[in-house]
Amino acid sequence: MTAALRAEVLARFPGARADAEALARGRTDRSGTPGTADPLAVVRAGSVDEVRAVLAWAHEHRVPVVPRGAGTGLAGGAVADGALVLDVSGMRRIVRIDPVEEVAVVEPGVLTADLDAAAAEHGLMYAPDPASAAISTIGGNIATNAGGMRCVKHGVTRDAVLGLEVVLADGRLLRTGRATVKGVVGYDLTALLVGSEGTLGVVVGATLRLRPRPHVGGTVLATYPDVETAARACSRVGAARLRPSLLELIDAATLGAVAAHTGTAALAAGAAVVAQTDGADAGTATAELAAVAAVLREGAATLEQSDDPARADALLTARRLALPAIEAQAHALIEDICVPRARLAEAVRGIEQIVAATGVQIYTFAHAGDGNLHPIVTWPRTATEDSGAVRPAAVDDAAGRVFELAVALGGTLSGEHGIGTLKRAYLGLELDADVLDVQRSVKAALDPRGILNPGKAI
Amino acid sequence: MTAALRAEVLARFPGARADAEALARGRTDRSGTPGTADPLAVVRAGSVDEVRAVLAWAHEHRVPVVPRGAGTGLAGGAVADGALVLDVSGMRRIVRIDPVEEVAVVEPGVLTADLDAAAAEHGLMYAPDPASAAISTIGGNIATNAGGMRCVKHGVTRDAVLGLEVVLADGRLLRTGRATVKGVVGYDLTALLVGSEGTLGVVVGATLRLRPRPHVGGTVLATYPDVETAARACSRVGAARLRPSLLELIDAATLGAVAAHTGTAALAAGAAVVAQTDGADAGTATAELAAVAAVLREGAATLEQSDDPARADALLTARRLALPAIEAQAHALIEDICVPRARLAEAVRGIEQIVAATGVQIYTFAHAGDGNLHPIVTWPRTATEDSGAVRPAAVDDAAGRVFELAVALGGTLSGEHGIGTLKRAYLGLELDADVLDVQRSVKAALDPRGILNPGKAI
Repeated sequence: MTAALRAEVLARFPGARADAEALARGRTDRSGTPGTADPLAVVRAGSVDEVRAVLAWAHEHRVPVVPRGAGTGLAGGAVADGALVLDVSGMRRIVRIDPVEEVAVVEPGVLTADLDAAAAEHGLMYAPDPASAAISTIGGNIATNAGGMRCVKHGVTRDAVLGLEVVLADGRLLRTGRATVKGVVGYDLTALLVGSEGTLGVVVGATLRLRPRPHVGGTVLATYPDVETAARACSRVGAARLRPSLLELIDAATLGAVAAHTGTAALAAGAAVVAQTDGADAGTATAELAAVAAVLREGAATLEQSDDPARADALLTARRLALPAIEAQAHALIEDICVPRARLAEAVRGIEQIVAATGVQIYTFAHAGDGNLHPIVTWPRTATEDSGAVRPAAVDDAAGRVFELAVALGGTLSGEHGIGTLKRAYLGLELDADVLDVQRSVKAALDPRGILNPGKAI
Repeated sequence: MTAALRAEVLARFPGARADAEALARGRTDRSGTPGTADPLAVVRAGSVDEVRAVLAWAHEHRVPVVPRGAGTGLAGGAVADGALVLDVSGMRRIVRIDPVEEVAVVEPGVLTADLDAAAAEHGLMYAPDPASAAISTIGGNIATNAGGMRCVKHGVTRDAVLGLEVVLADGRLLRTGRATVKGVVGYDLTALLVGSEGTLGVVVGATLRLRPRPHVGGTVLATYPDVETAARACSRVGAARLRPSLLELIDAATLGAVAAHTGTAALAAGAAVVAQTDGADAGTATAELAAVAAVLREGAATLEQSDDPARADALLTARRLALPAIEAQAHALIEDICVPRARLAEAVRGIEQIVAATGVQIYTFAHAGDGNLHPIVTWPRTATEDSGAVRPAAVDDAAGRVFELAVALGGTLSGEHGIGTLKRAYLGLELDADVLDVQRSVKAALDPRGILNPGKAI
């Protein structure tokens, strides 16, 4: 059956491949959690019409389809268990940027950082900035409702999407949203599709809101004796009604990893906080930086601030190197939970207790201004392993405890990575039966045959 | 049949009324477009359990239900054609305001301005500020995804809603969203429900995002010889990447009405523009006001700016009196279209052509920063009429031409009021058959018996 279907796909679609390399690639993504079976095939679509043709065929034959961009997702959303992989990463044109309306029209395979760079030429920015911006696509960002560091001030992907072109499960092309800044006609299918992880349709085009590119005021980096003091400092920033464009917390374990990675011990501390500000002009942004620094100083062991661009950038190094430093030492499962901001320190301490209870090493850094933590659950590298090292069960167990902690603190299983396959078993912790039922009804309404990314997200 | 059902409603629900006054009130709203039949009855619910009981009963008996807040909607969304009116305006508690998380939890009948005032006590604001804020409810604002003047900078209702409690058509209570700032678990049912005009569920509670209350920098008021010059001035504000917190355009006809109403001719001009700025501190906001004024000055006939609070407020008078001045002279159908910002002047000129072609007087003012126009389509008062004056067909015809103009300019039928009953006939102008089909599928998924606000919105 698979062989016959595979042969038909290869014969029918010019962009189809079923060689070992293509299948291996389609079977996994950056979650490091491969599917249980190879994909049926991988079709690299070059146009909206090709996407429509693939879906119309798959719908007719009830063949499951996994939409795929750059495969940088961290929750297993693009992992294909025997499904047909529909790769749209080759559709990568920035169709137009309209500096008057402050919108961009793009194809789904455009890299997020490339769009932001193109917007910058007009004094604009594309606000969402996931850490993967240089390698992840707009389509993937839309599928997961990606966040990033500056979304604490400038919003997440959903806030930036004005309209979509989406191919439905049956191959119909749906145009949602509008070209205007505001609009309330009909249900907001755009917002429904953002974050739906490829289970309701395949994004083949997007109209995105750009924003004036602000001046950066500089960076402040402070260290604290413990995470409670650091978290309280972050809370005071909010209570002072300041609006940093970046407010990150780094725990002691991560600071240790960065120190080991860089060969310096400069940041040995219980926790560190990094903040940036921005504003319509340099004066505003610098003034707000000074205000943020004044708030962060209370309880700090050390504090440095700079509005010199080079030094300001250097002060971000510890945060920027956090993940590379951890990954240099160990294999990493990159997690993502969100708690009410006031419970940030409790979350970090709770994770430390999970480390103590399980023996699994977890490093945590956080978008503190959003209460969004990235616990990096790790396991040791060994001398003999290959790149396909299998994740120990203890790591998944520790991650599960982290999810339970998030929900117990009034938080959520995912702030920005999505559910994919990795967290699906935990959905019931957060969503009650009625919510799951309504979600399944919506899924059935848009994809009655259930062919789009089955087993994901909901 | 109606009599028996009505008797059952009155017997079953303590808050039920079917007297002439209650029925007359439930038959219409501020759209001035009464339904064709009296409501079955009006049930004033005082609790979530009462809402659930009413919907469970209505679902069982397939009785249509029209949810209602303060009845201030302008598109006929709360008009009941023989349906059971479910009035939740009595559920008006602000349950809590959490200044650390910057969220409010409220019941649906809370008046929008009351919530904003309560937030102000914590240095926060509830950003959406429809012109009806003093009389409209949060529940109604959520139903229509209400906008307002400051949403040009601070976002519309959907941007402010983190989570909802919604009673579904069958009486189940659905909790959507989350208590955290970010979250991507499952489909965004919250965003789907905002703006759904009571057709998918009845909002009985909301968790709303508050924002730091900014300092107001002051007001600038400029007049121009013609609307093109005024619109270009507004465009230059955006091109300069300035972010006023209010940017309004007033056309010549409206200025004339204000002059007649106030007995002054101070603003006789082709068009006027009013702007305000705000910021984290007074200095920032005042500096941005100066920058906005400098941009608006080019081409202006007159310009006044002030950062004195009393004078700054006075400079808003013309905009604030626009609708009262028009309504003092004539009956008014308050319309609401949105066009790409660059086409604002074309929209105003197009409306002038509709006036010339139909003889129907239309006044226009606009949230210029959003391209969102409010054409006020009027007809004369007569000496003998009562308050129930019937709208002439020519007025609806002129309004229809305005909708066609909006779509022809690449815009939308409604920026913030919704579709209700008034614009439903025009939906096909904007939404193609596939979009309408998907919307109906979503409706059927959540309300399979079609009892919730039938004949509205989609």
